[in-house]
Amino acid sequence: MKAAIIGGGVIGGGWAARFLLNGWDVAIYDPDPEAERKIGEVLDNARRALPGLYDRALPDEGTLRLSNDLGDTVGDADWVQESVPERLELKHKVHGRLSELAPAHAVIGSSTSGFKPSELSQKGARVIVAHPFNPVYLLPLIELVGDAEHCARAAGILRGIGMYPLHVRKEIDAHIADRFLEAVWREALWLVKDGIATTEEIDEAIRMGFGLRWAQMGLFETFRIAGGEAGMKHFLAQFGPCLTSPWTRLMDVPDFNDELVDLIAGQSDAQSGHLSIRELERLRDDNLVAMMRALKHSGSGAGGVITRHETSLPQEDAAPVPVTLDRQVPQIWTDYNGHMNEAHYLEAGSNATDRFMEMVGADADYIARGLSYFTVENHLRYLDEVHAGDRLQAKTRLLGAEGKKLHLFHALTRGDGTLVATVESLLLHVDLGTRKTCPPNVVVAEALAQVAAAQAGLPKPEGAGKVGR
Amino acid sequence: MKAAIIGGGVIGGGWAARFLLNGWDVAIYDPDPEAERKIGEVLDNARRALPGLYDRALPDEGTLRLSNDLGDTVGDADWVQESVPERLELKHKVHGRLSELAPAHAVIGSSTSGFKPSELSQKGARVIVAHPFNPVYLLPLIELVGDAEHCARAAGILRGIGMYPLHVRKEIDAHIADRFLEAVWREALWLVKDGIATTEEIDEAIRMGFGLRWAQMGLFETFRIAGGEAGMKHFLAQFGPCLTSPWTRLMDVPDFNDELVDLIAGQSDAQSGHLSIRELERLRDDNLVAMMRALKHSGSGAGGVITRHETSLPQEDAAPVPVTLDRQVPQIWTDYNGHMNEAHYLEAGSNATDRFMEMVGADADYIARGLSYFTVENHLRYLDEVHAGDRLQAKTRLLGAEGKKLHLFHALTRGDGTLVATVESLLLHVDLGTRKTCPPNVVVAEALAQVAAAQAGLPKPEGAGKVGR
Repeated sequence: MKAAIIGGGVIGGGWAARFLLNGWDVAIYDPDPEAERKIGEVLDNARRALPGLYDRALPDEGTLRLSNDLGDTVGDADWVQESVPERLELKHKVHGRLSELAPAHAVIGSSTSGFKPSELSQKGARVIVAHPFNPVYLLPLIELVGDAEHCARAAGILRGIGMYPLHVRKEIDAHIADRFLEAVWREALWLVKDGIATTEEIDEAIRMGFGLRWAQMGLFETFRIAGGEAGMKHFLAQFGPCLTSPWTRLMDVPDFNDELVDLIAGQSDAQSGHLSIRELERLRDDNLVAMMRALKHSGSGAGGVITRHETSLPQEDAAPVPVTLDRQVPQIWTDYNGHMNEAHYLEAGSNATDRFMEMVGADADYIARGLSYFTVENHLRYLDEVHAGDRLQAKTRLLGAEGKKLHLFHALTRGDGTLVATVESLLLHVDLGTRKTCPPNVVVAEALAQVAAAQAGLPKPEGAGKVGR
Repeated sequence: MKAAIIGGGVIGGGWAARFLLNGWDVAIYDPDPEAERKIGEVLDNARRALPGLYDRALPDEGTLRLSNDLGDTVGDADWVQESVPERLELKHKVHGRLSELAPAHAVIGSSTSGFKPSELSQKGARVIVAHPFNPVYLLPLIELVGDAEHCARAAGILRGIGMYPLHVRKEIDAHIADRFLEAVWREALWLVKDGIATTEEIDEAIRMGFGLRWAQMGLFETFRIAGGEAGMKHFLAQFGPCLTSPWTRLMDVPDFNDELVDLIAGQSDAQSGHLSIRELERLRDDNLVAMMRALKHSGSGAGGVITRHETSLPQEDAAPVPVTLDRQVPQIWTDYNGHMNEAHYLEAGSNATDRFMEMVGADADYIARGLSYFTVENHLRYLDEVHAGDRLQAKTRLLGAEGKKLHLFHALTRGDGTLVATVESLLLHVDLGTRKTCPPNVVVAEALAQVAAAQAGLPKPEGAGKVGR
């Protein structure tokens, strides 16, 4: 399949990347002499990010070519996407030619956020709005507006490249999503102008709260939950009358009457009525926990808040056999068998190793100075099932610490004291600069010797001895 | 530390849960005879979700008591939180008594979204606004409004229970976040009323696009990126003039002049200027990929879109030694050593096992009928480093399939062909109803026999034989 991209830049480049990485051949028409560099940069980002969404390989990348000839660019295209600057006369000129030059079966889409299909086609062009969201190579949403048959054809193709087409049934200025963006943008400009909040405070007000809710459920399903057992009508009864309060500069509000209440409550039932409020709450909570945990990796927003709090939580002091893990199992660690997935036993073991390293001085500072341990072998025995919500603890035996070798044995127990798994690990001390093995520094070596001495009288744990041979 | 919660319900109950699970003792005053049941339900949700955010145990839960006496409830409290219905005369009455009864050092907060501190304290009560977001036990944001010293004291306590206090420096109707919620709510009501979109379509328009952006960066930092290398001023120059377009019903807009541009661009520089646009793009992309991957577990929003697309991606047909994994390594699989974390080698091996099971008929339908395999032992050898963006493949040898036992050996290779790890797994076939072992059904047993026959002439792989002894 072939795509023609008219106008590079961030949006056109994003479209090109989405098609290319899904195996389409792409031709780009852009008179900007910097076009190749700019598109290359978007493509670099897309190649780095998009395949990471999937646990399978995407198709082999298609071919990319830049062209100076519009006919050559679109002549054999199955999809033509226009992303030129937002000036109506320019759009008319471009779409007049695209309608002539593109094959009859091709979808012709415009990335416009500001013009309606009736405006774009004033001069007879066959074009629909296919409005994407930046970054186009990651975010699924495409708003389709215009001729129903043309939109339906487009929707099928978009699903095939991993996107989510939303058919906007009645055209309206700015389509749907951008109307919300624009409302919030205008409200935010007032707050900055009036000195109520800075741009940073506004961003925090969004990403530490409702932004997380909206990323997984949007507006109405979230409010349905807020209505509690009494449902959407109860929520509307509570907040409907506030429509006349000065809670935003948006003071032109619809009449709040029974007709509007019935319309919204009915649509909300159709959307979410198959789940009870309790089920919706738990779905919301599981999603929030999963997303907030995901943000811990970069430390952005809520992820940073969690990590800072976590670091302040007390941990047990070193005992001869130290507790190196003590936590509750999150929902997202479970799998289709209804219990903790095998890989998370090792994640728990890996966290226990990290904590043991920290205890002997091979901590974040030590790693920042260029020294660390790499695991070379692991052996896991699964002795009992673990479920979401279970307390999970690890106690760690040091089975060997000669020179650059470190041999650990973690016993994992559930809250009820049952031994649920053992994780036996062999690690080698490395120089992070050269990636070669080397002995640990004296402080770490001495701390290891002390743990070894403290554990010297203990018998070899049952099941140990499966690594390092 | 002791908290007094005045008014249960979803918000009061959420506050109670947040304090309790962080080790505080909590007293609740609520005349509703259903209060105990309602709070119990919020607590159940909180116990299930909140500890899952952390990789360490939270403190031991505090004690919870309900009281019918206001003085008894707040007499020894360090924090008093009022969440009674939004009627000003009721708030005045309650806060008059709270100011008398609470210790002088106690923070007295109101959960109000509709009243300003100056309104709450009209009759002399000492009270600040401490406005939370549902679910209070998960979302970090608390808007603090009112006396600066009182707010500063509150902020320290809130950080100690894992929250993110945002000090609203000038009081304003609805504080900050709810002004955005209200603007979007009003805009959304118009769209539903005018038949442009249903509640479900609006939710999709949010969660498939900008909701994901806002959950990790908010509004201004996202727009800063959209401005590209030319920065925030460029973005403002592009979208500022659109303020007069009919893109929302919010038509009361601030003057778009140099003063406003300089104010916003300057604040944006102070907020995000330490990162280049390229760095911001990659941070945004890493966060989006991490959150969207996290949503795959429940299938909500973008998570469902990804899984549907993934399922449509072609996989290699069975060869004598089948390819059971073929994927790119996401950024979130890497750790502080700058390479793929040890646990994700096992995640890859686990995915390879899933694919092998699928190939022999032990697929999702088979599992839905109540039969599956549980892993009982894994042995991993780490032979080389793997980095974000690397292609990773697995080929699987069947080393044994007698009765209920299944013995697999996955060889993991990087895109350049280097063998990076081996994962040797021993599994047992189980009845998911009884959780006891049993033989697989005939179809699976026969498929396994066929794979065994096809691989019969192959030598034992190097490094195999470390499980099942």
